Amino acid sequence: MVDAASYSPPVDDYTFLFGEAFGLDVVARATGGELTAEDAAEVIAGAGDFAASVLAPLQTVGDRIGARLEDGQVRLPEGFAEAYRAFVEAGWVTAEAPVSAGGDGLPGAIRAGLGEIWNGSNAAFALCWLLTAGQIHALDAAASDEIRETYLTKLVSGEWTGTMNLTEPDAGTDLGAIRTTATQREDGGWGIRGQKIFITWGDHDVAENIVHLVLARTPGAPEGARGLSLFVAPKFLVNSDGSLGKRNAITTVSIEHKLGIHGSPTCVLSYEDATGYLVGEVGGGLAGMFVMMNSARAGMGFQATGIADRAYQQAAAYASERVQGAVLGRDGRAPIAEHPDVRRLLLSMSSKIFAMRALGVYAADLLDRAESDPSELKLAEFFVPILKGWTTEDAVQLTSDAIQVYGGMGYIEETGAAQHYRDIRITPIYEGTTAIQSNDLVGRKVLRDGGATAEELFTRIEGTIAQLRGVEGPDAARNADRLERALAAARRATADLLGFADSPRDAFAVSVPYLLLLGTLAGSWMHALTVAAVLAHENRGPADAERLTSAEFYGTHHLPRVHALAETVAAGEIA
Amino acid sequence: MVDAASYSPPVDDYTFLFGEAFGLDVVARATGGELTAEDAAEVIAGAGDFAASVLAPLQTVGDRIGARLEDGQVRLPEGFAEAYRAFVEAGWVTAEAPVSAGGDGLPGAIRAGLGEIWNGSNAAFALCWLLTAGQIHALDAAASDEIRETYLTKLVSGEWTGTMNLTEPDAGTDLGAIRTTATQREDGGWGIRGQKIFITWGDHDVAENIVHLVLARTPGAPEGARGLSLFVAPKFLVNSDGSLGKRNAITTVSIEHKLGIHGSPTCVLSYEDATGYLVGEVGGGLAGMFVMMNSARAGMGFQATGIADRAYQQAAAYASERVQGAVLGRDGRAPIAEHPDVRRLLLSMSSKIFAMRALGVYAADLLDRAESDPSELKLAEFFVPILKGWTTEDAVQLTSDAIQVYGGMGYIEETGAAQHYRDIRITPIYEGTTAIQSNDLVGRKVLRDGGATAEELFTRIEGTIAQLRGVEGPDAARNADRLERALAAARRATADLLGFADSPRDAFAVSVPYLLLLGTLAGSWMHALTVAAVLAHENRGPADAERLTSAEFYGTHHLPRVHALAETVAAGEIA
Repeated sequence: MVDAASYSPPVDDYTFLFGEAFGLDVVARATGGELTAEDAAEVIAGAGDFAASVLAPLQTVGDRIGARLEDGQVRLPEGFAEAYRAFVEAGWVTAEAPVSAGGDGLPGAIRAGLGEIWNGSNAAFALCWLLTAGQIHALDAAASDEIRETYLTKLVSGEWTGTMNLTEPDAGTDLGAIRTTATQREDGGWGIRGQKIFITWGDHDVAENIVHLVLARTPGAPEGARGLSLFVAPKFLVNSDGSLGKRNAITTVSIEHKLGIHGSPTCVLSYEDATGYLVGEVGGGLAGMFVMMNSARAGMGFQATGIADRAYQQAAAYASERVQGAVLGRDGRAPIAEHPDVRRLLLSMSSKIFAMRALGVYAADLLDRAESDPSELKLAEFFVPILKGWTTEDAVQLTSDAIQVYGGMGYIEETGAAQHYRDIRITPIYEGTTAIQSNDLVGRKVLRDGGATAEELFTRIEGTIAQLRGVEGPDAARNADRLERALAAARRATADLLGFADSPRDAFAVSVPYLLLLGTLAGSWMHALTVAAVLAHENRGPADAERLTSAEFYGTHHLPRVHALAETVAAGEIA
Repeated sequence: MVDAASYSPPVDDYTFLFGEAFGLDVVARATGGELTAEDAAEVIAGAGDFAASVLAPLQTVGDRIGARLEDGQVRLPEGFAEAYRAFVEAGWVTAEAPVSAGGDGLPGAIRAGLGEIWNGSNAAFALCWLLTAGQIHALDAAASDEIRETYLTKLVSGEWTGTMNLTEPDAGTDLGAIRTTATQREDGGWGIRGQKIFITWGDHDVAENIVHLVLARTPGAPEGARGLSLFVAPKFLVNSDGSLGKRNAITTVSIEHKLGIHGSPTCVLSYEDATGYLVGEVGGGLAGMFVMMNSARAGMGFQATGIADRAYQQAAAYASERVQGAVLGRDGRAPIAEHPDVRRLLLSMSSKIFAMRALGVYAADLLDRAESDPSELKLAEFFVPILKGWTTEDAVQLTSDAIQVYGGMGYIEETGAAQHYRDIRITPIYEGTTAIQSNDLVGRKVLRDGGATAEELFTRIEGTIAQLRGVEGPDAARNADRLERALAAARRATADLLGFADSPRDAFAVSVPYLLLLGTLAGSWMHALTVAAVLAHENRGPADAERLTSAEFYGTHHLPRVHALAETVAAGEIA
């Protein structure tokens, strides 16, 4: 019986990605040599040990018991509070926070790996950390010294947790419709009134205080998104000496009964003249939220990769243990992993997960570099919607494939495979649905610059093709040929999209297919870089052979979709 | 708020499919004129009314409360027993049973529609009927007069329900590993011992007796599948006067806690020298089960279509009510259904559901005709794995799309969208996983006859292309062009597959992609037939325009996948 609580951190892949896949040590480059890929691999291994021993065993109880609302207080299952304390004490919250906020400022490439690992071991738990990390970025960018001292330090230490309060019953994707109000008081604070929904970890009992980051409308503010301002509002008010005072007028009205991530309480919060403090300028709310958007959206990509990998690990373990029936072309009692179609499912999962993982590291590293090198900013931001949209959409299918590996046993909740299929389904929705990601990609990042950033990506891919052309042997040639054909399809699709510049409904009716096309292509690029790195090894071992097989599978099973999607993009809207 | 209990039977589509889509009245042909498409549409409408008023309202309670095991007896939620009685009294069980078994013998085309409707309105409930219907076919083919009189008549009347007892803990896909034994007693009956798992509706309280059809091994029988015999074993033994006697030695050990279809009890049954009666010959068990396989597998296709359509109906209703934000290219407050990407999702669902529905009618009608015309048998049976495999695989994605239409609300269980995503996930698994379907298709139906039956299908598709070429205008030409290109890809893929005849692992490593290719192609053929029928109308109305849009969407968004899949098939196994 496969243990649903077990989790193996993908240390080998991250070691390869940090040190080799991109032709240099990306960690050393990001830290000016302060850390190397080897150091980074140790961080990943340490996080993996913590995740496997502390977080992964709580994943099932988080699902079965889940968060409950009792007398106005959300309670997590036994073990969550202890795990959170251990997480904080081990320094993982501080490790990822920027240096400017008092954190250790680990580079993006490592944070990509950590993001996957927290989510792979326990996605519901990881959301608590993820929201806190996002708020740290937002406050670090815009908050006054007073707010930094009172709130940001407590978030960075991990003592308190953070939330994002955007959505309202009639304001989800359309934030301009937000109706929550904030009225300034004589003491300089603000009184917040309104109802916020879908507030992840909006209340809980794993830390002593919660800092809500709230979008609200000030009196006389213009309609729409420009009228929104940002506030912090704590669950417990903070005395001037930093000690906790009375409870703020924020009530947890209810928590949602969701398809998955039951261990992550999703709250309806009612603000009844709750006390808040302005972050940044009046009317600067949306800009303040955008600060955290790139990292939050990339974070969703890591979450989807993590959940998909956990599903894969369990399915692979089951398939290598389970023996049933004779296996075609194999002698004796072979496990079902050797059945051609089970092998297909497992390779389909692992080859796509590797592509997602690699793209996560590449994009996170590029976002890092863009902070000091503005010439990289456009391409870095180009990858954000692709990473979020493509990874989350395709990862849903991967968790479904994992169930298929189990057959009927996969449909039984006790097996644990179904939880991943339920948990992951939110990822293409929150932090902006796939449609929102694709609108961002097509509207702001392709049509607006006439395809220049897309072409920059294509040129880099061409560089990898040229690199492969310089290597002898059929592996390099096959991968180069396939990538070249796919690249041509992507260029055609981009030209078709640009042709819709004057009929925007045509462009936005195929924006998701276009996003998936670029994601699929980028995944193949990651495999091509890997093939180039592996073929440079003088002596190739089993791990190298596995990477070549994975690239070959991706190239023949996943990449051809690019051609189908290009046909779809060409069609525009079907009226 | 969309009412999760509402259900609209797809009467218009079935009216069109029965009377027009295939160029003649398929119901009249099947019944020798006794029934017409018009009569059939009335049957569908009547079933639809019953389903909408009696079955659909129980779908949510079936999910939330579900079946429970209490003191050795499975109990269904309130309302299920009454609904089952009403279902029986309305004559729906008898209507579908063959004439030879004492039923009304409705033709396959109508049964396809009914199958979709029972499942669309309440898939968990429908499984009870589906298993009974399957057992009726098996007993009708092989049972002795005594068994027919004692059991079959009660099944056909609907008074008792039937189950299939195949799977054991170590014998799922591999039935040859079955260990349950049956030993003949002096009175001619048999004593059955063993444990069966995954027994759908294996116990319940909605009918007074349950007839189990059990695969077991007789003393001295050969190893493997040839050693299996078929038995009926009732929950309550039947006295010689037909009244119910004492309880048979069959214990419900437990019921499964499943991802979905909670209203369908999935039982572990323990046979403790339970009394059974032989059906057919000793050693003829598997042959007896195969009798019901075509209809059961086709039935799974109808189930997946039904669940997907219910998910679509609810998502479409939500999208046409929900107003949020400005809609690109539309003035005023337009519902989210007008957003280009929501429209894409809805058209993606509806165009594929139509293709699945049409293929269901076509294949069911062909299976019917094959009974009297052996020249149609090979093609009819060719469609069975395609209908089962393609419909169930792709329908999973459709229920996921339905959640996406709702955004965050789709992830909340109360909305009702998540239930379909959970319910449908079993359909690519039971009645033979997609791998089993594709092995059947590739092994028995393509490689064995050197692609002759596949070519027969392709020739018929060519006929439709020729028909479209004879019609003027861009609609006909576009559809013909696309189908022609797809057909060429399918022929190439078939040739590639035949090229693997001597390296079977290559063929079976791409058998699922090949099955999905043919399903996608067949779906496009259904749309092409529809386009031909619609273009023949002298005056075209809004319904005609919708059919043309649906075909155009399918042709540009779904059909291009054929080309990607053909590339995958060509690759064989990635070693």
